[in-house]
Amino acid sequence: MNRREFMQNSSLATAGVLVGTKGEAAQIHQGKPKSKLQLGFIGVGMRGRNHVDLALRRDDCEVVGICDIQQVMIDACLKQFQNHGKKKPTVYGLEERAYLEMLQDPAIDAVVISTPWRWHTEMAVASMQAGKYVGMEVCGGFSLDECWQLVNVHEATGTPLFFLENVCYRRDVMAVLNMVREGLFGEMIHLECGYQHDLREVKFNDGKQPYGGGVEFGEKGFSEAQWRTRHSVHRNGELYPTHGIGPVAQYININRGNRITHLTSMASKARGLHEYIVNHEKGGPNHPNASVEFSLGDKVTTMLRTSNGESIVMHHDTSLPRPYSLGFRVQGVKGIWMDLNDKLHIEGKSPKHRWEEAAPWLQKYDHKFWKKDEQKAIGAGHGGMDYFLFNAFIECGKAGTEPPIDVYDAATWLAITPLSEQSITLGSTAVAMPDFTRGRWTMRENNFAKGDW
Amino acid sequence: MNRREFMQNSSLATAGVLVGTKGEAAQIHQGKPKSKLQLGFIGVGMRGRNHVDLALRRDDCEVVGICDIQQVMIDACLKQFQNHGKKKPTVYGLEERAYLEMLQDPAIDAVVISTPWRWHTEMAVASMQAGKYVGMEVCGGFSLDECWQLVNVHEATGTPLFFLENVCYRRDVMAVLNMVREGLFGEMIHLECGYQHDLREVKFNDGKQPYGGGVEFGEKGFSEAQWRTRHSVHRNGELYPTHGIGPVAQYININRGNRITHLTSMASKARGLHEYIVNHEKGGPNHPNASVEFSLGDKVTTMLRTSNGESIVMHHDTSLPRPYSLGFRVQGVKGIWMDLNDKLHIEGKSPKHRWEEAAPWLQKYDHKFWKKDEQKAIGAGHGGMDYFLFNAFIECGKAGTEPPIDVYDAATWLAITPLSEQSITLGSTAVAMPDFTRGRWTMRENNFAKGDW
Repeated sequence: MNRREFMQNSSLATAGVLVGTKGEAAQIHQGKPKSKLQLGFIGVGMRGRNHVDLALRRDDCEVVGICDIQQVMIDACLKQFQNHGKKKPTVYGLEERAYLEMLQDPAIDAVVISTPWRWHTEMAVASMQAGKYVGMEVCGGFSLDECWQLVNVHEATGTPLFFLENVCYRRDVMAVLNMVREGLFGEMIHLECGYQHDLREVKFNDGKQPYGGGVEFGEKGFSEAQWRTRHSVHRNGELYPTHGIGPVAQYININRGNRITHLTSMASKARGLHEYIVNHEKGGPNHPNASVEFSLGDKVTTMLRTSNGESIVMHHDTSLPRPYSLGFRVQGVKGIWMDLNDKLHIEGKSPKHRWEEAAPWLQKYDHKFWKKDEQKAIGAGHGGMDYFLFNAFIECGKAGTEPPIDVYDAATWLAITPLSEQSITLGSTAVAMPDFTRGRWTMRENNFAKGDW
Repeated sequence: MNRREFMQNSSLATAGVLVGTKGEAAQIHQGKPKSKLQLGFIGVGMRGRNHVDLALRRDDCEVVGICDIQQVMIDACLKQFQNHGKKKPTVYGLEERAYLEMLQDPAIDAVVISTPWRWHTEMAVASMQAGKYVGMEVCGGFSLDECWQLVNVHEATGTPLFFLENVCYRRDVMAVLNMVREGLFGEMIHLECGYQHDLREVKFNDGKQPYGGGVEFGEKGFSEAQWRTRHSVHRNGELYPTHGIGPVAQYININRGNRITHLTSMASKARGLHEYIVNHEKGGPNHPNASVEFSLGDKVTTMLRTSNGESIVMHHDTSLPRPYSLGFRVQGVKGIWMDLNDKLHIEGKSPKHRWEEAAPWLQKYDHKFWKKDEQKAIGAGHGGMDYFLFNAFIECGKAGTEPPIDVYDAATWLAITPLSEQSITLGSTAVAMPDFTRGRWTMRENNFAKGDW
């Protein structure tokens, strides 16, 4: 299906072409907005069911199809429909390509992809080709080629893709975005971010529960341990860049007047996962997994630079005992915020050479989304930010407007992973980031979270 | 003067050859310890006078010579002697090579070099050649060649060099060293450090006071603004690595069973110093310095890797408004400490996934130096750490033993600066760190702060 066919045939008739230049943006609004979206879910594991839950709370969308390869996940999902008193969806599944069948349902306007990383691009491409507005979960970058594939298929079909990066909607992250936009930090200079989360009880479990209780993974694991852990066995790089780069990209307008030009990445030795296995009461030095050699350095650090001259440091740290921290640092000519200590310093406002508590500032600059819908967000995943993410996905689909986090963002953010692997392989040499917008970044504007959603 | 001549003729007769291998170390203790050291000071500006003050408080050393090119600094220094009721020293100075004259005084056992960076190597080399035990202040790396020169002259003359990195003696840094050595953090994985200090009022002043009050530097500046600021004008790199790498080197035994193999460096754009000038009440857009183009990126980040597989991130950030922080992070298989939030996490001891206050741990693992001499350290510079540094310098000189921070450390830590400049020039490519020990690092042991000083 080419772009013309999508425009004529898409069940989401209002969706336009996400060319993203200022002049062409108006095209997106052609056609009538929809009052309700029909949704299909590809993958209803732990993450997919978070989104299903958010969908079932709403009146402006209907979940008409779900798909998974595991009966246990389908059963758990169907129970959600029961709990919400909603009509059960058509179920597809139990084999890997079942989602293609679901994509043939003309009733479905949009799909949400929450599957293991390995499937994200393949499923997004098939969905765009089927004319379904795509919500694609984060991560899964393996090659620059597949990043280009996302862009190319999007441009050929005109089908919109919303990259579901939830941390862009975190309350403090959005308040800081307001502060950045109001110039409190001055011109941006340096940013830090990352994913620092002790995932050892995600990477290993007992095959029955999703978190911990054993040292199994792969065939013998359950949920993410079934697939995510293999990436730690076989790959060495920044495997999970989006929670970090997403908010940073909003602060410095990546792909909208700015772009990442190159990066370099460095990995420490890998010890944490092996130590976890041999020291676990259900593991030990004689457990079969004690002989697994993990490739992923316990700490992977990536430095990125932009065309506007900012530097970015990303931290990936998921195999060691440590408290959760995305490690944000937002630093400009006039001030700095860091989330590790929850403090900031603004020249002329903070005492000289002193930190002050960020909380009053974050409250003062609370984003309008949170002010308005705090109550709705309560109970949604990850401290409420998932509500705003999913709301934007649905509202954007209904209105047929350009997603605030689009296919160019997806390609750029995902590309960090293979580029990081390449840099590490080459001894931390610098590698170039492609311009997935093909020059459009010089024209595009950052309107993230400026409208009603 | 070659090594044999030094051994025969040096006024510091007990000083041995700092070969640093286990087998040869015994040589160092040949000869009688001295009960008192005769000192000469090259440079008695702000920093030199800190050391002079520490010397004048002691009975086991005597300041017999001072040297400076500025009368105002000499006058201020002589006032110190008056205040302490000590005999005035011979004064050398008012021209750049006057220190060479002081080096000819056979009464002088040791010299302390506290001059602008550009002079450190040249003066240390001349001092070693004159057979004077050298205390060399930190920083001043310009080329790998001069780092080698330090090593080569040391090896040719046998004269010891103590690299005066004071942060190795900071109370929390030493407590964490105890914790590292007791294995609380497990095998080391990742470290961070740096120099994050708003130096705008050091880089600029009114030509009369050392800190602030104007936007002058160079000829019209005073104290560090006279020379340090020019480095920000002309150079782009990690200009001040030692306060960060010093403590980290102790944690992971750099040059003693481990070594830095390579690094890569990235600089942000440079805005902070220009903004400071144009926004200062004594500056403004028409001030002559408003047209100066500064080369130094406001934030320079360097990633280093070691032969033992640790990664290190260094932060250089001296041109923006921000609170002081050396940004330490010490992370191993079993836990992590960070100084930004003054917190740590130790597996099995801290609550899972939670930080706890570092203070009780730092108190429990307080280093013996601090326990014993806390009272003496009070009033010494930089929170007391300067006392322990200077004490080690004097005690080491008296005993004629190998300095705990030696010429190989000086060469390695200083080399970070030119390597960082090189990496940035080459687009953040990775560059190799020479092995200044010529293989001895595989044999040397880390005995830092294990003895009485």
